[in-house]
Amino acid sequence: LTRRPIIGVFDSGVGGLTVLRELVRLVDADYRYFGDTARLPYGSKSVETVARYAVASAQFLERMGAEMLVIACNTASALALDAIRSSVKIAVTGVIAPGAERAAQVSRTRQAVVIGTEATVSSHAYCRELARVGLKAREKACPLLVPLVEEGWTDHPVTEQVARIYLDELFAGESQDRDEDVLLLGCTHYPLLRPLLRRLLPLALSIVDSAESTAQAVAAMNSPGGHPASPTRRPPGLQFFATDSGEKFRRLGSRFLGWELENVTHVDIDHG
Amino acid sequence: LTRRPIIGVFDSGVGGLTVLRELVRLVDADYRYFGDTARLPYGSKSVETVARYAVASAQFLERMGAEMLVIACNTASALALDAIRSSVKIAVTGVIAPGAERAAQVSRTRQAVVIGTEATVSSHAYCRELARVGLKAREKACPLLVPLVEEGWTDHPVTEQVARIYLDELFAGESQDRDEDVLLLGCTHYPLLRPLLRRLLPLALSIVDSAESTAQAVAAMNSPGGHPASPTRRPPGLQFFATDSGEKFRRLGSRFLGWELENVTHVDIDHG
Repeated sequence: LTRRPIIGVFDSGVGGLTVLRELVRLVDADYRYFGDTARLPYGSKSVETVARYAVASAQFLERMGAEMLVIACNTASALALDAIRSSVKIAVTGVIAPGAERAAQVSRTRQAVVIGTEATVSSHAYCRELARVGLKAREKACPLLVPLVEEGWTDHPVTEQVARIYLDELFAGESQDRDEDVLLLGCTHYPLLRPLLRRLLPLALSIVDSAESTAQAVAAMNSPGGHPASPTRRPPGLQFFATDSGEKFRRLGSRFLGWELENVTHVDIDHG
Repeated sequence: LTRRPIIGVFDSGVGGLTVLRELVRLVDADYRYFGDTARLPYGSKSVETVARYAVASAQFLERMGAEMLVIACNTASALALDAIRSSVKIAVTGVIAPGAERAAQVSRTRQAVVIGTEATVSSHAYCRELARVGLKAREKACPLLVPLVEEGWTDHPVTEQVARIYLDELFAGESQDRDEDVLLLGCTHYPLLRPLLRRLLPLALSIVDSAESTAQAVAAMNSPGGHPASPTRRPPGLQFFATDSGEKFRRLGSRFLGWELENVTHVDIDHG
């Protein structure tokens, strides 16, 4: 048996399991997933706090044997990618650049809109990354979408109404030179709202999901090394760590991962 | 000048400022307010995590000179009051007992309903405390109300719809022996929704606000000592501490306190 790489996946909570789900599909590896559930959400907090938490979490995954690191959390990727990179020795991939690159492949008008948490949007990390690949972008914070998804209201009239309000604000006003054809989902919770958002959006607007794009980017990095996912491969080794109760992580997490979670360990990294 | 007592007020965030607002009105004292904004919310987290955070926060306020402690956070009061009491040397008051006692004064039918966070409701702390004062109670978790208040949607059609859904679930089904006449607001964010809730509730149902009741209980404890609030008193000394950005605390907090906040200091107690 060939030894497979160990990939660490980090998120503030269970949302990053949407990234893990795609990774497992595309990359033959063993995974260590860390959810900082005792300190979530990151999306409403300051850059200093998010960076401090993200660095401690990344270092924990490195200690647990991760040979590369995927920052599945959009907020941590937007606010703390440089801080994380300089705090560990292993390669680090965030979700912002893969999301922006995918948007650039999809867009014909070279204009995109991005929705995300308050912290992600305030950082303008997506705007900068999209500019780097030649796209003009506008961003909109949608703070209520995460709690609505966590409540399980992914296809609920209230969620539809809230999404409609945010999208109306995003597209309000007329502008001659505005011609966006891509909407980037800049938060790991939003893929669960994809069917609902699809119904509300004009057909001309394509939805790009950073979770999917990131998994594809990681697959591209790993396949030259000889670990492509194949139908005959062994099932991936999955190990989960959560800073709050493992029981709640298991319960909420299965909704994001799409199957039951085992091997959830509670850890306390406040003092380490 | 007589020296006034120093009262420490603790909450997971800015919600406890609704308790502070009432305290300032009723009790002539100097105040130290601590908001654990880097680790909020508590309402969705486990008893172990909440107790660990609450104890560290209470000990911080004791170190800052607090001579008595008000736990303004319903979740911390419900899950960690005993743990806090045994970790500090000063007197500690939570919001659960004052709220329950006030409900007992108001209710004629001896039946109450309580709304709060998931953690508060799961702990059944209100049910136990209400039983102690002779009231039967039912509880309902309303997880979306906190994010809606933090979004500033205190009088918004979406919030009304969400509140209506929760209240419908609470009062669903028929029961011969059900005759509640009090609704207890078991979360510091809910007083901001009082006008909206009042519109949705049957007139026979009185609203009891734990913030108000707690301030009254603390006033009763302090007035024998000779510090009643009077119109001619000096303005209270207010000092604020927040574990996340002070700037955001200032901005969001003024909505809860009803006036501008000064003296906000950022502190990091992760390692203390």
